[in-house]
Amino acid sequence: MDFHVMTLFPEMVSQGLSTSILGRAMEKNLISLECINIRDYSADQKHHKVDDYTYGGGAGMLMQAQPVYDCYKNLESRIDPQHTKRVIYVTPQGSVFNQQMAMEFAKSDDLIFLCGHYEGIDERVLEEIVTDYVSIGDYVLTGGELPAMVMIDTISRLVPGVLNNDISAETESFTDGLLEYPQYSRPEEWMGKKVPPILLSGDHKKVDEWRLMMSLERTKERRPELYEAWMAAHPPKPPKRRRKRRKNTTAVDGTADTTIDSIKVNNADNVEAVKNSGNTNFEDVSSNDLGK
Amino acid sequence: MDFHVMTLFPEMVSQGLSTSILGRAMEKNLISLECINIRDYSADQKHHKVDDYTYGGGAGMLMQAQPVYDCYKNLESRIDPQHTKRVIYVTPQGSVFNQQMAMEFAKSDDLIFLCGHYEGIDERVLEEIVTDYVSIGDYVLTGGELPAMVMIDTISRLVPGVLNNDISAETESFTDGLLEYPQYSRPEEWMGKKVPPILLSGDHKKVDEWRLMMSLERTKERRPELYEAWMAAHPPKPPKRRRKRRKNTTAVDGTADTTIDSIKVNNADNVEAVKNSGNTNFEDVSSNDLGK
Repeated sequence: MDFHVMTLFPEMVSQGLSTSILGRAMEKNLISLECINIRDYSADQKHHKVDDYTYGGGAGMLMQAQPVYDCYKNLESRIDPQHTKRVIYVTPQGSVFNQQMAMEFAKSDDLIFLCGHYEGIDERVLEEIVTDYVSIGDYVLTGGELPAMVMIDTISRLVPGVLNNDISAETESFTDGLLEYPQYSRPEEWMGKKVPPILLSGDHKKVDEWRLMMSLERTKERRPELYEAWMAAHPPKPPKRRRKRRKNTTAVDGTADTTIDSIKVNNADNVEAVKNSGNTNFEDVSSNDLGK
Repeated sequence: MDFHVMTLFPEMVSQGLSTSILGRAMEKNLISLECINIRDYSADQKHHKVDDYTYGGGAGMLMQAQPVYDCYKNLESRIDPQHTKRVIYVTPQGSVFNQQMAMEFAKSDDLIFLCGHYEGIDERVLEEIVTDYVSIGDYVLTGGELPAMVMIDTISRLVPGVLNNDISAETESFTDGLLEYPQYSRPEEWMGKKVPPILLSGDHKKVDEWRLMMSLERTKERRPELYEAWMAAHPPKPPKRRRKRRKNTTAVDGTADTTIDSIKVNNADNVEAVKNSGNTNFEDVSSNDLGK
């Protein structure tokens, strides 16, 4: 996966992404990152100006079409024409980025991020080169650099080999639609606070159940809309109707005596669903056999 | 406003926020940024270890309570006790950051960001020190550093004096609940594409109307939920009922002849609402006089 960032602040992006997991992934050539200064493509040889006033009036300056376009054409000429690529304009006027979008973007060979500054970029060059308008959330930032870095970080983690084998992107938050449960590390007691005994019990079934309950509780409290979506996708099974035994006959299909057991199973259905699903994502869970 | 970031990658944060508007704001002492390395507070003097396995099993390592706590206590001892402060844990298990939350945070004297890495942080220290659990969106990142930088950028812009006088945080996206209209800068014609003539007309009323229509169209297409919310808050006024004239009398209140005009006004109500609202935010617009 090759990332290209068109920006007025190339150092900000390259420095901010050089640490930790992404730095190692670049060393291993799993991903590459190229930061290109749009200012280098200014037609104004003296002051390297890239912005001007907005037609129709309004506060602030706008980035002009020409430097952005020339920067892009130069970049495009260096990308293998066989490669699949997308040009992402980072803007509050876009669809909101999420994990599903990251998975979609991760399928491309080349991802080009265009970072705006000032009041934005002349619409005409956007029409000409941009394939995706993406926002990282409903808040206003100084420029597109931090959002581009956020997206690159998220997408990089989905490139095979970038995460260590012992960490799986699949098991993390948002892939199963619930927030993660609380976690504890050594020591067993810290400042009088003990690790919940169930986590020390060695009973994996009970640990999984406890974690699911904690996830549900936390999601309900902090992200009620995610909780509702999860509950809708994991409805408790209705209790099986007790079939009337015909007098003087025995049960014909073995279900007659299982009513109470069925109810117990129903109460634990959500637990079972997640346990059975292993590392699969939200959609996979809902298509699993939710009962026993 | 003093920002403090508790992190394992202090250089990443300080370098990433040193450019452009934020760098200038720091030079002018409008904001300050302190990045503290949690690793410096490890009890392990030899390897400066800060993480360990998770109780109950699971992939990846967890940041331990002690180094985080000691780092926080040292920081807290250096903050004026009269100051209002918040401790924000950057986590996918949090409420989703937005512009309203940024405005709320901007009221504090000190904002402390705690950045997790690996699989997260021991729950017990979070319970002890954290006041707010905040996520920047529904996607998974390598660590809390980029989200902390995103929040610091957003909040800094709301600190008086940080933005130049000619740019107002109030006029930007999300403060009126609609996405921004397309913008154009020089030249008038670029690659055969012309600036929409209305923007060159000098007729400010028509420019405002055109911009609102473009904003509505774009919001409807890209963020239908924002569009619905805006429309619900700006319902077109029902047409005034034509009062029956009593025969042989003239209109008593001057309204009788205005029916057709009223309808025209109603069609343009949304335009008027935004125009009247000037720089006010979404809530203010809805309480304005929507008619004439």
